Amino acid sequence: MLKVAIVGASGYTGVELLRILYAHPEFAVTCVTSEQSAGRPVSDVFPTLRGRIDIPLENLEPVGISGKVDVVFTALPHKAAMEVVPTFLKMGKNVVDLSADYRLRDAEVYGRWYEKHLNPELLQDAVYGIPELRRDLIREASLVANPGCYPTSVILGLAPLLSGKLVDPGSVIVDAKSGVSGAGRGAKLDYLYCEVNEGFRAYAVGGTHRHIPEIEQELSLLAGSELAISFTPHLVPMDRGILSTIYTNPLSKVTAAELVARYQEFYDGEPFVRVLPEGVFPSTAQVRGSNFCDIGITVDQRTGRVIVVSAIDNLVKGASGQAVQNMNLMCGLPETLGLDFLPVFP
Amino acid sequence: MLKVAIVGASGYTGVELLRILYAHPEFAVTCVTSEQSAGRPVSDVFPTLRGRIDIPLENLEPVGISGKVDVVFTALPHKAAMEVVPTFLKMGKNVVDLSADYRLRDAEVYGRWYEKHLNPELLQDAVYGIPELRRDLIREASLVANPGCYPTSVILGLAPLLSGKLVDPGSVIVDAKSGVSGAGRGAKLDYLYCEVNEGFRAYAVGGTHRHIPEIEQELSLLAGSELAISFTPHLVPMDRGILSTIYTNPLSKVTAAELVARYQEFYDGEPFVRVLPEGVFPSTAQVRGSNFCDIGITVDQRTGRVIVVSAIDNLVKGASGQAVQNMNLMCGLPETLGLDFLPVFP
Amino acid sequence: MLKVAIVGASGYTGVELLRILYAHPEFAVTCVTSEQSAGRPVSDVFPTLRGRIDIPLENLEPVGISGKVDVVFTALPHKAAMEVVPTFLKMGKNVVDLSADYRLRDAEVYGRWYEKHLNPELLQDAVYGIPELRRDLIREASLVANPGCYPTSVILGLAPLLSGKLVDPGSVIVDAKSGVSGAGRGAKLDYLYCEVNEGFRAYAVGGTHRHIPEIEQELSLLAGSELAISFTPHLVPMDRGILSTIYTNPLSKVTAAELVARYQEFYDGEPFVRVLPEGVFPSTAQVRGSNFCDIGITVDQRTGRVIVVSAIDNLVKGASGQAVQNMNLMCGLPETLGLDFLPVFP
Amino acid sequence: MLKVAIVGASGYTGVELLRILYAHPEFAVTCVTSEQSAGRPVSDVFPTLRGRIDIPLENLEPVGISGKVDVVFTALPHKAAMEVVPTFLKMGKNVVDLSADYRLRDAEVYGRWYEKHLNPELLQDAVYGIPELRRDLIREASLVANPGCYPTSVILGLAPLLSGKLVDPGSVIVDAKSGVSGAGRGAKLDYLYCEVNEGFRAYAVGGTHRHIPEIEQELSLLAGSELAISFTPHLVPMDRGILSTIYTNPLSKVTAAELVARYQEFYDGEPFVRVLPEGVFPSTAQVRGSNFCDIGITVDQRTGRVIVVSAIDNLVKGASGQAVQNMNLMCGLPETLGLDFLPVFP
Repeated sequence: MLKVAIVGASGYTGVELLRILYAHPEFAVTCVTSEQSAGRPVSDVFPTLRGRIDIPLENLEPVGISGKVDVVFTALPHKAAMEVVPTFLKMGKNVVDLSADYRLRDAEVYGRWYEKHLNPELLQDAVYGIPELRRDLIREASLVANPGCYPTSVILGLAPLLSGKLVDPGSVIVDAKSGVSGAGRGAKLDYLYCEVNEGFRAYAVGGTHRHIPEIEQELSLLAGSELAISFTPHLVPMDRGILSTIYTNPLSKVTAAELVARYQEFYDGEPFVRVLPEGVFPSTAQVRGSNFCDIGITVDQRTGRVIVVSAIDNLVKGASGQAVQNMNLMCGLPETLGLDFLPVFP
Repeated sequence: MLKVAIVGASGYTGVELLRILYAHPEFAVTCVTSEQSAGRPVSDVFPTLRGRIDIPLENLEPVGISGKVDVVFTALPHKAAMEVVPTFLKMGKNVVDLSADYRLRDAEVYGRWYEKHLNPELLQDAVYGIPELRRDLIREASLVANPGCYPTSVILGLAPLLSGKLVDPGSVIVDAKSGVSGAGRGAKLDYLYCEVNEGFRAYAVGGTHRHIPEIEQELSLLAGSELAISFTPHLVPMDRGILSTIYTNPLSKVTAAELVARYQEFYDGEPFVRVLPEGVFPSTAQVRGSNFCDIGITVDQRTGRVIVVSAIDNLVKGASGQAVQNMNLMCGLPETLGLDFLPVFP
Repeated sequence: MLKVAIVGASGYTGVELLRILYAHPEFAVTCVTSEQSAGRPVSDVFPTLRGRIDIPLENLEPVGISGKVDVVFTALPHKAAMEVVPTFLKMGKNVVDLSADYRLRDAEVYGRWYEKHLNPELLQDAVYGIPELRRDLIREASLVANPGCYPTSVILGLAPLLSGKLVDPGSVIVDAKSGVSGAGRGAKLDYLYCEVNEGFRAYAVGGTHRHIPEIEQELSLLAGSELAISFTPHLVPMDRGILSTIYTNPLSKVTAAELVARYQEFYDGEPFVRVLPEGVFPSTAQVRGSNFCDIGITVDQRTGRVIVVSAIDNLVKGASGQAVQNMNLMCGLPETLGLDFLPVFP
Repeated sequence: MLKVAIVGASGYTGVELLRILYAHPEFAVTCVTSEQSAGRPVSDVFPTLRGRIDIPLENLEPVGISGKVDVVFTALPHKAAMEVVPTFLKMGKNVVDLSADYRLRDAEVYGRWYEKHLNPELLQDAVYGIPELRRDLIREASLVANPGCYPTSVILGLAPLLSGKLVDPGSVIVDAKSGVSGAGRGAKLDYLYCEVNEGFRAYAVGGTHRHIPEIEQELSLLAGSELAISFTPHLVPMDRGILSTIYTNPLSKVTAAELVARYQEFYDGEPFVRVLPEGVFPSTAQVRGSNFCDIGITVDQRTGRVIVVSAIDNLVKGASGQAVQNMNLMCGLPETLGLDFLPVFP
């Protein structure tokens, strides 16, 4: 058993890591941190854990923590992550960072969308952790930048098209929708029950969401050329789930059947990507609580546009599940270990 | 007081008509029909009405009904509507039909998307009832085809752009999201609480939704040329509301401020269209229970695309509220009569 | 038209007052206050109001406000209300106070459940505003204490039984359930969407909820003797609505039909109380958005217990609607003026 | 690995059995039946299963099925179960029946609440499967009647009080609340999304719910004397979860601390019952997706009544999880095998 620290365990990705790792045969969480709740049992903050995980939340002391665990998940806000990750790395720990701090190759881009980077030299070593695209690099990495939730759904949704040069890279429009847990666990008016419930809205309209640069970075790599996308996120009154509806123009005439075949071939053998048959499209309800990414694809006969719909659970494949998948790879364990559970329905 | 019949009163648009008309100073509902529940008080089918509207549901006998009411709302499924509307018209009644049966000018198009039309000769007389675009014709009409819920949100969202030749008519992509009441009140597995709740999905992907031809008919009229759109509807786990996110390419460079100004001018004086200030976008929660259509508009600086977001309550501006608005016009009443109520929040 | 101030307009009862009063033919809201948002248009805080009610939020200056309005609704937290109500009264204004500050006759009881009362001398003048029980006193009052949401549902649910000496006053158990808007609009972790959604829980278990003393005060008056109840509130994942399930022992054998008849007689002619037929029970969905209180009653044949189920919309009959009903009475207007709207369903 | 049949796999308890058993190390589901969907892959009916459990649904042929599996879960409606269970038993299979057909010891009582029993001779052999109360009998049984969802929450909630003679057995009032999945997967108007959402209601008011006789049977056994309860179920707009609030009178004065201690002792070592500390009460959200039953208990100081609040996931501890717990015992496996997973939050 490898000893695991979850740094920043009082948010929704933290408790989801705890849920997943509790059933993992090779990882044992022995350290959890929270600045706000240090000293209290983690089961006090998340009563779901009561009787099973009652270890106390600790203050975030990277050196001390490094001395007593083997690997580290950092589930901190951006900036807070880059303040501690270098120490964990220096202490020889494998780190999967769930923040945005190591996702962008280019410190200048990071600075433009976030703020000045504190340790830009690490950006070249960090691996952007989409196992389906970068399995071998992840195995060798000591720092994996766990992808954002929206980016996971979009990148997996477009990889077969862009890498196959099947569509115009300049034509990508992503209309994405997320459950509320994506907004985190901060006590903000906007995310009160009565503010969110029974309503649907767009936000960050006009290309201002911070997940855009990492999506474009990865899609550009797939396409082999720089591209820019239109990306509009929306808030759905539900706890979990992201569905991305993606529109793009094919470079030449193509049928739905051909595209489904292309996707099935591209993702052949992938344990967590399910390419749906022609005419079938995903629902977030069908991946809820699981590490699956379900993808449906078709062609609009009337306009010729290609439409891809991809669905994930933002807290699992979009965060904590993918983080465990990455850490499995980094530790030489089977990639699916502890992750082969089914969605919860209803 | 004008006497009103609601033909097909046991669905959600029926009960919403009853709610609205109960507070209307010039219309009195004296006849409600339902094949399934004839003989029972309508308040038995909708207990919200108890003590206020307890008249019995009747069988649908167009001649008899015509003899005792002044105007008729038909809230039947398509096909069922065209079987009775001609009789009401022959009997001299003003009819607002909430079905799809008289929305398309071209019987051949109707036949392709629905089935063979039973009285195609009426299609030229029927007025597609968007008051903001066609107020004068509605005033003169005896048959108004009440627009579909999705089309209302899309047509109002795009009218200023297309009529102003500001965007490429071939570039329109509509990503639309609807609450569950849009699916009607039939007892189908797909719309059970546990099937819909906590999930989000697309449906009719690839350009197959029956609202497409009426959207294209009206947008083509606005643009002055035939156009085709990509339209993908989605199901949101909430009762009411439609939000359409619309992407299109401007014909020349344009700013968000210019577009907002264009919309404000276009809808100047409109009682039910609220153009939001630059940088503000609508939520369905902010129009719930009201006849408003809220519209936000911007330009994605990075890709140059124009993005419009429009929100309505599908049962009010998307159905029963707009129907009353149309009937007000047809009867020479003030257009806003009985409709100037505020959204219900939370 | 009477000019109205809403003092404390940035909460859910504030916006509901604005919604109701917008359609009221004799009241015009000309002043709204909010300490946090003073200077901003109230439609900035509640975008539902945009284009209809755009007056600015003001600071709370009781003397100045009194100079420009005719009547006042105070929708402040407890304590904040009793700091300003005396001034409004001194300035000759009719006040309906939606807080708890003037609901209890006995300052000592207030002190025990809340804190030391600042103006206990007003408690004897204030009228506890349940119009169905105290219509004449309300007409004469200048200060009406608007009942709590839970108390309204419980008192109306039990009045016919206790006033008729039909049940053992010591046997009352109230199991009450409320939508989330009852918790107010403060940004607290406990009421975040993801904390509340898809969960159901009890709170204040064991007789500690602050609505207990006012329920007991009013029930004791009805029974003609002091009584104590067991009261357990619960939180339902929905925006609006309170349903109280009430258990009590009859003093002698009684049938459901006799009880329904008793209730129908007791509430005969009441505009907002709907006694349901034998075998029919209310749902919060059937009163949502309306000023109705729906009541069903039966006898458990097997145990002999009487069971009453009452449902209201906590923001309407449980707060703002009842406040307008009271103010109508205080101002000599028809009691139902501006309140005779139907529930919103679905 | 033991081969498992799930007879009646197209309902919510069926898919929950599949979810749980997929991760179970000793059971392999090799046969699933559904009359309506025979021939289709089970993943066609429940797309959550796609790629993991794609075996076809079969017709229900008890002899044939018995020839190819080791144990059987019957997840059929009542009556349908007792038509096939005897055959499975004759073929030597261990059966856990999730219907009501074998829960009542007395065929006459079954006849009164349901209908004439087809094989009353089996009722004495069947063991009512609450492992916490009847572990040893379950180990020896070949037919276990899996308890109803409401009964599980009530019996576990009251066992320490009644078996300890601490409360008046005639004073028990149960106010129970359930998520919508408890109503099953039939396409009925009452359970459509828009009929259920944003509403809360009681049903079967007055002591008519069919779970009453099994609750009373088990509570009477615990109390050592016949008792009758008042039981009122309610419908909560959420997918999963049951919370029972239970009121009862202590036989002598008792404190909350004493009661909590009694419960902790009674359930000491139980893997799935979590007795909460004094002052803490459960939420269904904190057991969602898990086999836990969380219980809080206190005394209302003002009235002396004891109040117990118990929460389960109706599909897990209230159905499929408990069924697996029972089958583990019947097969000589560790009781918690395949069931030690954490709740899903949020």
